[in-house]
Amino acid sequence: MADETDLPVPGQVRVVTSLTNPTIKEIRALALPKYRRESGLFVTEGMKLVADAVEGNWPIRILVYGAKVANHPVVRRVAQTAHARGGDVLEVSEAVLAKITRRENPQMVVGVFEQRFTDADAIEPGRDDLWVALEGIKDPGNLGTIIRTADAAGAKGVILVGDTVDPFGVEAVRATMGSIFHMLLARLSADAFAAWRKSWPGIVVGTHLSGQEDYRTVDYDKPVLLLMGNEQSGLDDRFAALCDHLVKIPQVGRADSLNLAIATGVMLFEIRRGKLTLS
Amino acid sequence: MADETDLPVPGQVRVVTSLTNPTIKEIRALALPKYRRESGLFVTEGMKLVADAVEGNWPIRILVYGAKVANHPVVRRVAQTAHARGGDVLEVSEAVLAKITRRENPQMVVGVFEQRFTDADAIEPGRDDLWVALEGIKDPGNLGTIIRTADAAGAKGVILVGDTVDPFGVEAVRATMGSIFHMLLARLSADAFAAWRKSWPGIVVGTHLSGQEDYRTVDYDKPVLLLMGNEQSGLDDRFAALCDHLVKIPQVGRADSLNLAIATGVMLFEIRRGKLTLS
Repeated sequence: MADETDLPVPGQVRVVTSLTNPTIKEIRALALPKYRRESGLFVTEGMKLVADAVEGNWPIRILVYGAKVANHPVVRRVAQTAHARGGDVLEVSEAVLAKITRRENPQMVVGVFEQRFTDADAIEPGRDDLWVALEGIKDPGNLGTIIRTADAAGAKGVILVGDTVDPFGVEAVRATMGSIFHMLLARLSADAFAAWRKSWPGIVVGTHLSGQEDYRTVDYDKPVLLLMGNEQSGLDDRFAALCDHLVKIPQVGRADSLNLAIATGVMLFEIRRGKLTLS
Repeated sequence: MADETDLPVPGQVRVVTSLTNPTIKEIRALALPKYRRESGLFVTEGMKLVADAVEGNWPIRILVYGAKVANHPVVRRVAQTAHARGGDVLEVSEAVLAKITRRENPQMVVGVFEQRFTDADAIEPGRDDLWVALEGIKDPGNLGTIIRTADAAGAKGVILVGDTVDPFGVEAVRATMGSIFHMLLARLSADAFAAWRKSWPGIVVGTHLSGQEDYRTVDYDKPVLLLMGNEQSGLDDRFAALCDHLVKIPQVGRADSLNLAIATGVMLFEIRRGKLTLS
């Protein structure tokens, strides 16, 4: 454990070794959807991800780091910034980190941040903009991977439609590999989405098993909203009817053999095919 | 429990309700890599997947089904075929199925099959053939998803290079969604792969962070071997040197932001772009 004078924010860091400390319990409770919903908070692990989020001005409520990284320059900088913004800064034992992250070899830095959702009505897509809408997605790993892939392909954000898994759950956040802090996220009920979709200035493209258009033949040179159905049943009739184009990715062998995240990835890079360039 | 006369193979089905039955223990042991290696067997769950495998003549050793599906026509047919081929056929309680699958709501049909690896020296790629080689892949879900995606894109098989996760583990098999029975699988040490690669009649294409070629500009109209590095570090120098083309998928924002399975999926559909057609 560091001396008081070694602490990144002397006099302001709480040193915690008790597994039953109330703040530690609060962080652990964020593994539960109910508590995330009530608090509007979520947990991110990893020095680089937490530092990127803090330096990108994402509102941090609690910063936790292991005593053995107390003198790491990134930790010192992040701790000072978190403290200056009113965040609670805790230096803890490895046992506490293992408890928080539920992992034997825990990350040394954990941040508790405010969740952020964008108001769908505030979305004003530009000429080249790409958004993804996911109807009823259930698997947190799939959702996190899609957010990460959408970020890499240069999409602006992801709209969660209907009853979907929480993007701020631990597994989803992990799978985003930091893209949770870069993508805009919106939530709409099925009805609200159907109404909102009318104002979309470009095309809405859905993949569908009985789609008649080849995914490579659509003109994507306009604002594109890619609408993907859920893992089990794909787009149902109601959502298919909201699409300007129902496309299909040709596949060999058995029907419907692409994982949702893979199908979304193939679609995203096809849509951006004419726009992404090697730097 | 069915009457003896109701059994798919009267007189030949063993009815098992004990959780400590030796065959049940043996099936459970197949969750362990060591026991899979020693026995050369693996477990697949699901009526459709097991039926497809049996009807595709994949060697089955043990068929297990829940008593409540004993009269399902598919189960009766599969049980008769499995028995005719010398397989052990067990009708069990739901508790036994839950124990085998380690799931609360278990699949009603489980099959124990022989693992099959192809001898890499026997691979004779045709003009349009596509194979995938994965170096050091660690995540079973990624591996299973890649096998599934390779199948959908019309690849012939997957070569596992060096120290990789077992494709016949439960999680990997689940993620293949049945493609484990359709793709050829080979295993090679890093040295053996480097030697084998010399006989590849087409091109070897690797993705690389410092790749200078755009993935969309390579002429893929020849036998293609797609070589992908592992999740943590990508292709190392030794494997990069084995490639005819080191390509990059252009991405926005932070480098290396695609998940391995997504990057492989985008590459596979790009390579097959000129060949896949909507039926």
